[in-house]
Amino acid sequence: MRISILGGSGFLGRRLAARLAADGRLGGRAISELTLFDLQPPDPPPAAGFPVQCLGGDIAQLPPAAIPDGTDVVFHLAAVVSAQAEADYELGRRVNLRGTDAVIDRCRRLAAPPRVVFTSSVASFSGGQGAVLADDARQVPANSYGAQKAAAELLLADASRRRFLDAVILRLPTIIVRPGRPNKAASSFVSAILREPLLGLHTDLPVAPDFALWVASPRRAVEWLLHAATMDSAVMGIDRSVNPPGMSVTVAAILHALDAVKPGASALVRRVHDPATEKIVATWPAAFEALRARTLGFAPHEPLVELVRAFIADDLDATRRERGLG
Amino acid sequence: MRISILGGSGFLGRRLAARLAADGRLGGRAISELTLFDLQPPDPPPAAGFPVQCLGGDIAQLPPAAIPDGTDVVFHLAAVVSAQAEADYELGRRVNLRGTDAVIDRCRRLAAPPRVVFTSSVASFSGGQGAVLADDARQVPANSYGAQKAAAELLLADASRRRFLDAVILRLPTIIVRPGRPNKAASSFVSAILREPLLGLHTDLPVAPDFALWVASPRRAVEWLLHAATMDSAVMGIDRSVNPPGMSVTVAAILHALDAVKPGASALVRRVHDPATEKIVATWPAAFEALRARTLGFAPHEPLVELVRAFIADDLDATRRERGLG
Ligand SMILES: NC(=O)c1ccc[n+]([C@@H]2O[C@H](COP(=O)([O-])OP(=O)(O)OC[C@H]3O[C@@H](n4cnc5c(N)ncnc54)[C@H](O)[C@@H]3O)[C@@H](O)[C@H]2O)c1
Ligand SMILES: NC(=O)c1ccc[n+]([C@@H]2O[C@H](COP(=O)([O-])OP(=O)(O)OC[C@H]3O[C@@H](n4cnc5c(N)ncnc54)[C@H](O)[C@@H]3O)[C@@H](O)[C@H]2O)c1
Repeated sequence: MRISILGGSGFLGRRLAARLAADGRLGGRAISELTLFDLQPPDPPPAAGFPVQCLGGDIAQLPPAAIPDGTDVVFHLAAVVSAQAEADYELGRRVNLRGTDAVIDRCRRLAAPPRVVFTSSVASFSGGQGAVLADDARQVPANSYGAQKAAAELLLADASRRRFLDAVILRLPTIIVRPGRPNKAASSFVSAILREPLLGLHTDLPVAPDFALWVASPRRAVEWLLHAATMDSAVMGIDRSVNPPGMSVTVAAILHALDAVKPGASALVRRVHDPATEKIVATWPAAFEALRARTLGFAPHEPLVELVRAFIADDLDATRRERGLG
Repeated sequence: MRISILGGSGFLGRRLAARLAADGRLGGRAISELTLFDLQPPDPPPAAGFPVQCLGGDIAQLPPAAIPDGTDVVFHLAAVVSAQAEADYELGRRVNLRGTDAVIDRCRRLAAPPRVVFTSSVASFSGGQGAVLADDARQVPANSYGAQKAAAELLLADASRRRFLDAVILRLPTIIVRPGRPNKAASSFVSAILREPLLGLHTDLPVAPDFALWVASPRRAVEWLLHAATMDSAVMGIDRSVNPPGMSVTVAAILHALDAVKPGASALVRRVHDPATEKIVATWPAAFEALRARTLGFAPHEPLVELVRAFIADDLDATRRERGLG
């Protein structure tokens, strides 16, 4: 089994690579080679029992070696995410759209069409707090990143129909807890209200406590990626996209889970007024039915408290070190 | 009022240009200049009372002069249509997607964002005979042309949200009667079963008489294009696409209208068995609710018999001459 991860240095790419290294197998078959691709050559995961190639380059001009001959599974995670795609239109189009075209073109040239697991996003929908989106809800993106992701879905579904490749597309919820620091993304606060208090730091909350969000943990996201890589795709027909079963949670519920794990920690979260962020996040859908995903075998989400505990187990120490917090 | 038509040599582009020349005005304002663009420089419409620039080139490398400074309205009709986009993947992507990107990029550089009227297609939907598609039906294309059109819709809606331009997108039904000859398009028979008998010629019918289709006349399509160019787009919000009010008609109803206009003509239509065509057309949706279009002021369709009479009035003689039928 030969596997490529495009965007292999990213938040999810690194976890996925580590998981593959730990498992040594995917879908019951031994992994014979892993290729990691990102702007700079990614670090190989620790202790892989198979060769790992690490390559740097631009996905819009994908070097063929990023998806070597004989590749069985491509995880296409490389992306310019929402704040950046909004700030730089050409960059978003080049990475999110031309990059996907380059993946399609490379896959066409392989002897057998590989499975391509693509990560689209909840940001390709709008609808806001009131909506509970059905599986056949239309994507009406309210940002360039979402529009580019939705367009890339169409191109990959068409490429699958033509048998250039065999795509399974996950429209991921907001993944929390993202390690690192607060950043300029409108979604930054969703991770920050857990991560910062667990680090003993203050953080700002730009929305009301009853604000609801569609979220998932990185552990669950990696499970879904592995399932998407190995499931039978024929049952999907020409519709290759799925809304995986995330969780609809309010900010209050997140803070409640935080206090359950670290009593009193939510006192470090300070409600602020931030109309710019409020305006952006108001369009985000807060809930999905996600029935198709269950039929297709995607695992339901674990409780919020487990998500918080997993962050502490997997990431808290590394984050503390990275940020020089001793 | 400065207007550009991209795809100005096409079936609809020529009619639109002729109509603008005849009217001399659009939305109550005098037309001061018309630019026509296509692979080869289009012929100017007869008797225009304003200057007409005719330019040749590839839309994927759009020359700025195709959308001159100060352009108020762009009709973006240039396309590689379904049979060709299916046969040549790169060509379809280049014209239908890169071409649309080039239009966006040119419009961004104008001092004021022009109205861009884009023609998407019923072929971006699937669902088949049973479906009656609501206005929020999701596009699950079963062909590359439809996938490229749906992706182009997303890019134009996003460009409108960013105020690079101001798009109104029509998902046109199959336009009948197309003049000319039968061709390799799966939809060729829909026009042929009217056009050929009116020319006194035999033609093949590859589907059953109760097969239903979503159609519109070229006259009505031109009306809709003009309305899309002049209507208030702000009421559309971020969703710039509309399913205009075509007609859901069966093949039997088409043949009935034919006989009403030319008694006995349908005897020239011969039912044949053509599983390849049947398989393609089986995915086409046969009916839409088209409620939003009515709210937005798009004119409902005229009866089928009028459509047949309009073809005779507008096109039959020219078609006879073109085809050397005396
Ligand atoms: N994390 C989330 O909350 C979330 C939610 C929905 C969807 N997604 C999607 O999941 C995927 C992974 O998300 P993530 O959080 O790991 O993102 P990330 O930003 O951490 O990783 C994306 C990676 O893509 C790489 N990249 C950017 N431009 C590139 C280029 N031109 N060539 C090659 N590589 C390039 C980046 O260097 C980065 O390592 C992305 O496609 C993202 O859009 C993520
Ligand atoms: N006619 C229909 O039944 C129908 C139905 C739905 C949608 N549409 C859409 O409406 C529009 C007009 O349709 P039509 O029937 O007039 O199509 P058409 O094929 O007659 O016209 C399209 C024009 O685009 C031009 N073109 C192709 N490639 C080009 C390139 N690289 N650069 C510049 N010009 C290029 C062609 O030369 C042609 O003149 C198209 O966008 C089509 O997809 C048509």
